[in-house]
Amino acid sequence: DFDYHPNILASSLASKKVTTFASLTPWAPDKDAFWSKPQEGIDKAISQIYQYGVRLHKFYFKMEDPETFTKEAGKILELSPDGILIAPWAKRESLKFTQELDQRAIPYVFIDSNLKEANPISFIVQDSVQSGYLAAKLIDYGIAPQSNILLIHITKDLQNADLLLKREKGFLDYFETVKNKSHRIIKIEVPYNEIEISNKLSNCILENKSIDAVFVTNSKVHLVAGFFDQFNDRPKIIGYDLILKNIYLLLHSKIDFLLNQKPESQGYVATNLLFDQIVRKEKVKNANYTSIDIITKENFEYYSSI
Amino acid sequence: DFDYHPNILASSLASKKVTTFASLTPWAPDKDAFWSKPQEGIDKAISQIYQYGVRLHKFYFKMEDPETFTKEAGKILELSPDGILIAPWAKRESLKFTQELDQRAIPYVFIDSNLKEANPISFIVQDSVQSGYLAAKLIDYGIAPQSNILLIHITKDLQNADLLLKREKGFLDYFETVKNKSHRIIKIEVPYNEIEISNKLSNCILENKSIDAVFVTNSKVHLVAGFFDQFNDRPKIIGYDLILKNIYLLLHSKIDFLLNQKPESQGYVATNLLFDQIVRKEKVKNANYTSIDIITKENFEYYSSI
Repeated sequence: DFDYHPNILASSLASKKVTTFASLTPWAPDKDAFWSKPQEGIDKAISQIYQYGVRLHKFYFKMEDPETFTKEAGKILELSPDGILIAPWAKRESLKFTQELDQRAIPYVFIDSNLKEANPISFIVQDSVQSGYLAAKLIDYGIAPQSNILLIHITKDLQNADLLLKREKGFLDYFETVKNKSHRIIKIEVPYNEIEISNKLSNCILENKSIDAVFVTNSKVHLVAGFFDQFNDRPKIIGYDLILKNIYLLLHSKIDFLLNQKPESQGYVATNLLFDQIVRKEKVKNANYTSIDIITKENFEYYSSI
Repeated sequence: DFDYHPNILASSLASKKVTTFASLTPWAPDKDAFWSKPQEGIDKAISQIYQYGVRLHKFYFKMEDPETFTKEAGKILELSPDGILIAPWAKRESLKFTQELDQRAIPYVFIDSNLKEANPISFIVQDSVQSGYLAAKLIDYGIAPQSNILLIHITKDLQNADLLLKREKGFLDYFETVKNKSHRIIKIEVPYNEIEISNKLSNCILENKSIDAVFVTNSKVHLVAGFFDQFNDRPKIIGYDLILKNIYLLLHSKIDFLLNQKPESQGYVATNLLFDQIVRKEKVKNANYTSIDIITKENFEYYSSI
């Protein structure tokens, strides 16, 4: 776009007013981690609106430790910024924080997932139910009737992981609609621990004779694909997100499909939504959805994640 | 992007120089026709660079009549524009035109397909071989070993349709790599005529007992899906392009996958490539590829074609 905002620029230059944003997102341990991608989009947006006096303060929490979310949220309340970007991963802790923000009338935008109990001015997410539904369709398309399908959540606290529960819902909804094919769906939950995952999967194979397809509800799909690589015949495998380990296994034909949600674009759009509402004083759209991209070994090379 | 070009703007305003572009693309009979989409992208780009003195003259040819290409190309030569956008659909006629442009040193950009015998300053296309390869993978993923697969070209002059031949090549290449599964591939060619298509398909079913999957190499996939809709059991069906008739059948579960190439974005990018090279005097990248998007009933709603 050649879109720019001379009037806003003029008035913010004249007033020298500084607008303070804060972001609260999961800590990305390295550049390949999923959460470095939304951060890239946020940084790009901030670099473009910096000239309007916008300054961003970044806060990070550890996904496996919701207490870190609460601690960083406290720091943000002290800072009292003009607007906040939040990835509301831990549901309970996020709702506590947003209730406090609602009371103080500090606007916030959600990225990655939405909580319908909260009141963000806007959210940008993938439709998680629909993406689970799509995963089910891709599995159903590729397997014979009466197959065994494994749905696996790799997470420590499923009940606090709204997004994964929504993906599961979509997945099960799909098979409700085609129940005449009578696949068998086996559901397991296991924390992010290679040995435990391996044990659970081994037991699962012993109990069910064969597993024809696997749906991993998050980016940990590389662990499952790695496990099945020891056998001659692997099930169809579908998971999420273009992190390096997943891409490697996709390109080596160990994973069939990765669903992706353009996380860079999410961070970019979310930041601009906050800017539009707070600095430009425009009412922004509440619900914003990213695409649900189907990535295979064959179209990966030409895929642009922005 | 917040990108703009104040220096170029200043100098083009001062000089009042007009830069003339021409486009030569297939005639789109209505807004739903595939070729109205690249046109949208071209129009959007032109509206943004109009302020730099760029004026576009549009010329259209009829895809089923290559003589119209030659006739319109002649009008462009008379106009002698500063740069040209060409969809080089009819290979022979396109090469004759571009040889003339090379002699006159008039730069041109190809959209939709590339001809390796020509010398465009740039082209923006989908990698057609790779998209055929992807179609084959999606079919192979969904069918049992020893299946009958139909590859169908719906066109009047296949030997002049470089893009369709490339898609076929990619498709056959894929099955070379998995030949141990020994599917049988049946190839047919038929002009764009509903009765002839129906006759050919009927004969094909009679001769081969069953057709398990069909790959239609262009946007005419709706005709094939319509034909198979009369039977209880339809083959897996894959084709190209989000035109309205195809979308309708996709959403009614009569087509499994549509491969899409963001034609709006192609037109937009192509125009900007011409602008960057001719007005901004920047050397642009010669090869530009669009994504190969996999669209299903389930992710269509959230797909953005720009």
